[in-house]
This record gives sequence, structure tokens and C-alpha cells, in this order.
Amino acid sequence: MSLLERTLKKIFPQDSACRSEARARLDQLAMPHWALGDLMDLAIDLSGMTATIRPSFPRKAIVTMAGDHGVVAEKVSKYPQEVTEQMVRNFVRGGAGINALAAQAGAEVFIVDMGVAADLRQLAEEGRLINKKVGLGTANIAVGPAMSKAMATRAVESGIDIANELAGRFDIFGTGDMGIGNTTPSTAIAAVCTGKSVAELTGPGTGLDEEQVRHKAVVIARALEVNSPDARDGLDILAKVGGFEIGGIAGLILGAAAHRRPVVIDGFISTAGALIAARIEPFVKDYLIFSHRSMEPGHQAMQEALGCKKPLLDLNFRLGEGTGAAVAMNLVDGAVAILTRVATFAEAAVATADK
Amino acid sequence: MSLLERTLKKIFPQDSACRSEARARLDQLAMPHWALGDLMDLAIDLSGMTATIRPSFPRKAIVTMAGDHGVVAEKVSKYPQEVTEQMVRNFVRGGAGINALAAQAGAEVFIVDMGVAADLRQLAEEGRLINKKVGLGTANIAVGPAMSKAMATRAVESGIDIANELAGRFDIFGTGDMGIGNTTPSTAIAAVCTGKSVAELTGPGTGLDEEQVRHKAVVIARALEVNSPDARDGLDILAKVGGFEIGGIAGLILGAAAHRRPVVIDGFISTAGALIAARIEPFVKDYLIFSHRSMEPGHQAMQEALGCKKPLLDLNFRLGEGTGAAVAMNLVDGAVAILTRVATFAEAAVATADK
Repeated sequence: MSLLERTLKKIFPQDSACRSEARARLDQLAMPHWALGDLMDLAIDLSGMTATIRPSFPRKAIVTMAGDHGVVAEKVSKYPQEVTEQMVRNFVRGGAGINALAAQAGAEVFIVDMGVAADLRQLAEEGRLINKKVGLGTANIAVGPAMSKAMATRAVESGIDIANELAGRFDIFGTGDMGIGNTTPSTAIAAVCTGKSVAELTGPGTGLDEEQVRHKAVVIARALEVNSPDARDGLDILAKVGGFEIGGIAGLILGAAAHRRPVVIDGFISTAGALIAARIEPFVKDYLIFSHRSMEPGHQAMQEALGCKKPLLDLNFRLGEGTGAAVAMNLVDGAVAILTRVATFAEAAVATADK
Repeated sequence: MSLLERTLKKIFPQDSACRSEARARLDQLAMPHWALGDLMDLAIDLSGMTATIRPSFPRKAIVTMAGDHGVVAEKVSKYPQEVTEQMVRNFVRGGAGINALAAQAGAEVFIVDMGVAADLRQLAEEGRLINKKVGLGTANIAVGPAMSKAMATRAVESGIDIANELAGRFDIFGTGDMGIGNTTPSTAIAAVCTGKSVAELTGPGTGLDEEQVRHKAVVIARALEVNSPDARDGLDILAKVGGFEIGGIAGLILGAAAHRRPVVIDGFISTAGALIAARIEPFVKDYLIFSHRSMEPGHQAMQEALGCKKPLLDLNFRLGEGTGAAVAMNLVDGAVAILTRVATFAEAAVATADK
């Protein structure tokens, strides 16, 4: 049996008994009913995911997956492809947004080369980067598939590998991405998985103007037409119009769910990874925490397709890297504090409301 | 010269040179322009408030002000008045929402008796509570003023005292409140300061049903008619339709601004305190950070009147105590991390976007 098959056999829904027990306690906290709103809902989810009413996530890992995209040949990004490599080196040196925000949240950052179009072996040998390279960037999805089916499987299994390696040392995962051009494949995945039109979903990414956004939408529509991905098959979607880092994110999510670890989903690209994971095993949805709503217009529809009505934050982020996930980890700790540290009316000897 | 007058003489606008310098650095960070959105805006404010481009807030204080309200005689709350005292005791024992969330955010909690209708001197003697009691609860605003003008001044100066005492030991303040019935005076203050109708602004507070909300609006309208507060005079509004803890919050804000300390404003009651402070000295607005949008319907109009288009969080909180301020302090630290820890394009040797 393959690693992927073995992993899927370990994914179960949230523990409903723990959810009920957590809700029963939260119902009795010495405050107006449900007065800490969304963080109380999150606390129930955390109990269900981890199958305990005393969840705790002191050890936090953000896994930032990097890969390049052949579709940049179609001029879908404002930045040159070498920025992917340059940003990976910036991550490793600790100078990027994710380094700053993960440090604030008390999270460790792991950088993964899923398929950067550059030689990063030196960094891997120095132990500063995890080498899971599937290829030197994907092929151009506007003219054919991004990768073979075997490569798609390998990308997903690489993400599972990382989850398996980190699950013993970390209590919660956050996803992150880096890859010039990767809003293009992510939007293609969004179109396949949400049924919305490419025009509705396509946005400026790192800062395209209106005309450039229209051109990007044409490229995405062509990619879908040329490849006709099978909407029921996550690996087929990934192979046809995906990316290596998106596959890695999907695998990390599947692996985390198999270990009953919550996964905080970052922005647009990470949500595309989550859509792939959920096509492979719909019950991964039970382990997702949606950190924020990105400025990319398709993000809301993607989150809704995964069952998220409202993410935790809405801070006009559009960076990726895992930055939204890092900030949201503070709120996860807040939810835990509410569930585990607040007294009930009875414990605090506080009078309840008139009925 | 009174303490209040001396304090007002020390309140200056944000430092515009530091704002510009912070903006210039953020403009050059190695990421798509302004890709960390609202936290970058916040970082500029933090620089302007503290007059440094390396702001830092490791020492955080949440000041939770408690007081009672004679208007509870009009049946405007679901909870009996003794809950104010019971919750103060719960704060002191560490069992409340604010204790849990402040601990998560690394903030110390100070509980202040501004005017609880109970004898709390023992707790003050034990050093577990700050005694600034102005009275045993306000008078019923539906029949006359909440307090005398002298008491209003004393409440505000008590908040200033606390800011002065804590400013040497803490880098940032958060506001909080406890007081059964206190959405009623806060809504009255909102009506005076925003010009919106009482019907629009009045909400369920701790959980009133529709009919009870209508009754509460009638009580608030009567309070405004009976007292006719002078909309240009913050102390008059406070004396006529305010509360002791609301005056304390206003004073804390004035004192914080005089020390160039940012103040993270909690929910509905704290925002009423901020409206009073801003009527006394409009430039305090330069020191306010709006943590969240409460579920109380009038909150948005109050925040807008203070220049806040969008608060940092929207988590369906309606507890008060300082809980929203505590959660938002994590985001303040995130904003600082972005400003002080992220490399620029030049520092990171990353290529910039095509123009």
C-alpha cells in the first residue's frame, strides 16, 4: 500500500464526544452566553480535532513550501522567476515576513524546496532547508499539464513525509507558500473545485493592473481548456493545473489530519492546496483552521467550498509565506485559554442571568 | 493647575517624522507592496505614537475598570447587580475571560474599583485590586444625573493617576470594563457623541430579547431628555449619563496619550470611554488602537466617530473586561515584528517588480 493510501486510512472525523464536552463547559463559563464568539467555536473544533477537552499547542510549526511555475512564460506575474529562489534564501536567513510573524507567534519555520527552478542543495546540506524537489519548476499549464501523475503523487507524499516527521515534535501546523506565478495555478484549481467562473476568481496576485488581470484570466481559461482536469480527482487537478508547492501543502494537510493535528491554512495558495487535499479525502476539512481572508477575490469562494463561512482574521494580507497562519496561531492559543482557564458560573460563584 | 489640566498640556499629535520614516521602510520591504495590509498601517501608527521607528511593547498592561449603575433599577440588564462584585472577585482570583486572554497575550491585568456597589476594601488592602472608588454605584440616569461634576472629574483623574503610575513599568495599555448595566450609559454617550438615534444604537448587551431592547432604548431616551448633556463637554456628558468605570477609562486614555503610550481599546464600554476622552482632548485619537468590533449594534458608529474605519478583529465578542484588547495585543506585536524584523529588497538582495 502506498504512503498516500496508508495516510488516508488514518483520517477520521473530529471526535464528537469531545466536541460536546467542550461545548457543555463553554456553555457554563461565567460570562454572557457565548460572549467570546468565534474563539469559542474554534475551541470546540480544537477539542474535536485533538480528541481532548484540554487541547494545548505550545509547539507550533509553519511549513513554507516553495516551487516554480512554467506558466510565468505567459507573463502572469509582475516579479521575475528568480525571486522564488531569492525569497527562499531570505527565509533561510530569517529576513522575510514569515520569519518575523512566526517568531511573534512562537512558531518554528520549516522551508521546503518542493520544486524551485534553482540549485538549493547547499542549503539542504547545511540543514537550513528541507529538500523535496520534484522538478525544476512545473511545465507551462497554458500548453499542457503542469506535471505527470507520478510527480503529483510524489509532491503530495513529500508533504505527508514532512507531517510524519514533524508530528512527534509539534502540536499544530501552519501552511505557507512561495512561488512566483502561483496565484495562476491556484486560481485554476479554484475554478475546478468551486465551479465559479475564471473571470470571477482571477485577481491581481502580487499587483497586476486590470489589463494584466484580464490577460491572466485568459491564460487560466486556456490552461483549463487544454488540460480538462477531472474535477472529482484531486491528483488529476494537481497534475494538470497545479504546482509542486501546492501538492506539498495538500500532503502536509493530509498528513496532519492523519495525526489529528490542526492545520492553520494561510492564504490563497494554501487554500488551493486544501482544496486538492479535500478532493483526495473530504474529511481533512475537519482539521482545517482558516486564518484569514486574502485580498485575492477568489479566496472567499474557495473557503466556502471548504465549509468556512468566516475566517479568523481579515487584515488585507496578500503575502502568503504562511504569514496569515502565523498571526492566527495567537488566536488558537486564545481559544485554548478560554476553554481551559476560564471558570464556570458555579466555579466562580457568579449569579446567572434571569431566565 | 489640576491633574487633568496638566495632563492635557502633555498630549501632542503623533510624530509625523517617525510616521514618514516608518512608512518609507515598510514601502521597501521584500514583499509585494503593502502585502501585510492592516498590520503595516498599524506599524506606522505605533511609530507615530511612540516617536520611534523601533517601537517595542514587551510590557503590556490591561486595566479593567469596574463600577455599578443606578439605572439597573429600570431593568435594563439580564443580570443582577451583585454580578459586578462577583466578577471583580473572579478577576482577582484569575478565573475570568480577561485573565485567560491577557495571560495568552503576555499582559498583566489590573483591576480597579471605580465604583462598585460593594465593600471591596479588603481586596485593595491585600494589593489585589486598585481602590479608586468614587461612589457605591452611580445614580439612576433615567431620573437625574449619574454623578456630580466633581465626581466625574475625580473618576477621570483616577484613570490618569493609574496611567501615571503604570507608565514607568508598561509600554502599552489596554482598556477593560465590568459593570452590570453599563451598555445603557455607554449607549447614551454614543447617542450624544455620534448624533445617531437611540433606537439605532441600542442593542442586547448581555442578552436582552427584542422587547427588552426596546424598553432599554426608552430608558436611554428618557435619560437624555431628563439630563440634556452638553455634547461639546466630555465631563458634562460623563456626569449626566456616564459611569464611574467609563470615566476611569477616559482618564486612562488621556494619561496614556500624555505618556505617548498606545492604548488598545476594547469593546462597546471602552469605546464610550474613548468618546468621553476625545471630547475632552480630541488629539487622544492619535493614541487609540481599536481592537475589535463588538456585536453591539452602536459600536461601529462610535468607532467611526473616533476615526476608525475598521478595527483589527471581528470575532463576535461581546464580553468586555478587556478581552478584545488582550487578543489584539498579539497583532500589535505582529505589526512591530513587521516593522523591525523584515528585510528590505536591498537588504535581502531580492529583485523588485517590473514597473
